[in-house]
Amino acid sequence: MPKIMQETSKRHIHKGRSIGFVPTMGALHKGHLSLFKRARDENDIVVASIFVNPTQFAPNEDLNKYPRDIEGDMEKLKSHAVDILFFPEAKSIYPATFLTFVSVEKLSDKLCGAFRHGHFKGVATIVNKLLNIVKPHRVYFGQKDYQQCLIVQRMIEDLNIDTDMIVCPTIREGDGLAMSSRNAYLTTNERQASALIYKTLMAASDWVKTGNETTRTIKHKMIEMLKQEPFFSEIQYAGAYDTENLEELAELKKKILLAIAVKIGGARLIDNVIIDTG
Amino acid sequence: MPKIMQETSKRHIHKGRSIGFVPTMGALHKGHLSLFKRARDENDIVVASIFVNPTQFAPNEDLNKYPRDIEGDMEKLKSHAVDILFFPEAKSIYPATFLTFVSVEKLSDKLCGAFRHGHFKGVATIVNKLLNIVKPHRVYFGQKDYQQCLIVQRMIEDLNIDTDMIVCPTIREGDGLAMSSRNAYLTTNERQASALIYKTLMAASDWVKTGNETTRTIKHKMIEMLKQEPFFSEIQYAGAYDTENLEELAELKKKILLAIAVKIGGARLIDNVIIDTG
Repeated sequence: MPKIMQETSKRHIHKGRSIGFVPTMGALHKGHLSLFKRARDENDIVVASIFVNPTQFAPNEDLNKYPRDIEGDMEKLKSHAVDILFFPEAKSIYPATFLTFVSVEKLSDKLCGAFRHGHFKGVATIVNKLLNIVKPHRVYFGQKDYQQCLIVQRMIEDLNIDTDMIVCPTIREGDGLAMSSRNAYLTTNERQASALIYKTLMAASDWVKTGNETTRTIKHKMIEMLKQEPFFSEIQYAGAYDTENLEELAELKKKILLAIAVKIGGARLIDNVIIDTG
Repeated sequence: MPKIMQETSKRHIHKGRSIGFVPTMGALHKGHLSLFKRARDENDIVVASIFVNPTQFAPNEDLNKYPRDIEGDMEKLKSHAVDILFFPEAKSIYPATFLTFVSVEKLSDKLCGAFRHGHFKGVATIVNKLLNIVKPHRVYFGQKDYQQCLIVQRMIEDLNIDTDMIVCPTIREGDGLAMSSRNAYLTTNERQASALIYKTLMAASDWVKTGNETTRTIKHKMIEMLKQEPFFSEIQYAGAYDTENLEELAELKKKILLAIAVKIGGARLIDNVIIDTG
C-alpha cells in the first residue's frame, strides 16, 4: 500500500503537479479542515493520511481508545476536495522486520517529551516515512502541537528532506479551547472546565505585554490560575519558553512561547500561543 | 551546496534520466571504481560523493588521519565517466543547529557495532541525508562492508526510501586482501601479514563446505589461525553469522556470513564472505 501511494505521487510529480500533504490520525475536526483548505489553495493535488501511529504512544497511553471515525472522516475529506486519502494498515507501515527510527535530540526531551517518553521519536519516524511515501512539495501541521512542528521542521532541515513545512494557526472552540480529537474524551463538566487553559494563556499574554512581570512570576501566576480548577488532576507544565530550543526562559525576550499541558479526566490537553513583540 | 545538488538531481529526474549514486569517503581505490563502472552501466547520470563523515567516527578513531586525496580522486572520477561529484563541506552537512539522527536498532550493535559505538548511527544518518540530497534511483555499496550494506538496506526499506540498493562484490588485491582506503595505514610487513584475513575466510569456507565442523569449531579454528600472526594486535571477531540478523550462528545453515575484524598496526581491517549452499 505505501508503494502504490508512492507511485501515484510520482506520476503526479512527473506531470508537473504540486502535492500538498496533511498527515492526520483521523477523528477529523475543524483544525484539520483548515489544513485541508490551505493545502487545497496552495497545491494541485491534496493528499491526506489517516494513521493512528502506534510508535508515538507509550504503553500506558491512549492508543486503543484514541477516537476513530473513518466514515465521518471520509465525508469531511470529500467536502474539502481532498484528492487522495492514504489510510494504511499498521502492518504495512511497521512490518515485523522494522528496526529504523528517527530521533531529533534535545528538542524531543523538553515539554511534552518529558512526560511522553519516546513520543517524538515515534512522531519523527512516522512523519519521515510519510514524507518519503507521499513526496509532497508542502506538508501542513497545526500550531496547537507547537513542539511537534518544531521537531518536524528540524528533521526536514537536518535530513535535507525536499518538502516545505507550513504551520497553520490553532483553530479554537467559541470559548477558546483548542480543537483536538482528544476533546472527545471530556465529559460536559470537564469540557467546560477546559476553557481555562486558553484563558490562562490569554492572561499570561497580557502579563508579558504589560512588561511588569518576570518569566518566574508569569509561570507562578499561570500555575496558580490553573490550580483554581479542581477538574485539572495534573498541571504538567505551564510557563514561558524559548521558541527555538524550548528551554524555560530565565528572562523575557521579544519572541516567546507560552505553553500549557494539563490532565483532566481521561484526557491530556495541550495548548500554546506565541507572543512576538519584535 | 546540498540544495544545489538536490536541484541538479531534480532537473535530471524531471527530464526522465535515471541517477546512479556512489557515496564514498574518498581515497578512491579499485573497489570504488568497480562501483562507478556498475553505476555507469545502469544509469543515465552517475553521481559520486566524497565526504569523510565525522558522525561515524568515535572520538578515539581515525577521523583526522583518514586518507584524503582529492586530486587523485578527481582523476579517477573523470576516467570513470562520473558525471557529478558532490564534495560538501562538513558545516553544510552538519550545521550548528543539527539534531537529527537515524538509527537502525539491533543490527547496529552487532559485530563492528560492538567495537565502534555510534558508528552505524552516523552511517545511517549520513546515507539518509545523501539519499535525500541526491535522490538516486540506485545506490551502490561494496560487500566488504557487509554490516553497513545490511543496515542501509534495512533503513531504505523501513523508511520507504525510493532508491534501489545494489551491493557489489568485494574487490581484492592479488593476495586476497580486500581493497580498503585504510590499507594505506599498513607498513610493508603489516600489509603482507594482512593477507591472512582472507586466507582464514577461505579456509573457513572449506570447513563449512566439507560439513565436518560445527559453527563453534569453525570459530575456534578461525581464531587459532589468526592468532598465528603476531602483527594482529587484536582479533575483534571471527566466526559464522546469520546473514539477516548478524547473530552468531549456533548451527550451520544454507546461507552463512563468515566475517573477521582485526587490529593491525594503526589499522582496523574487516572482511567477509557469504557462503550459500542453498
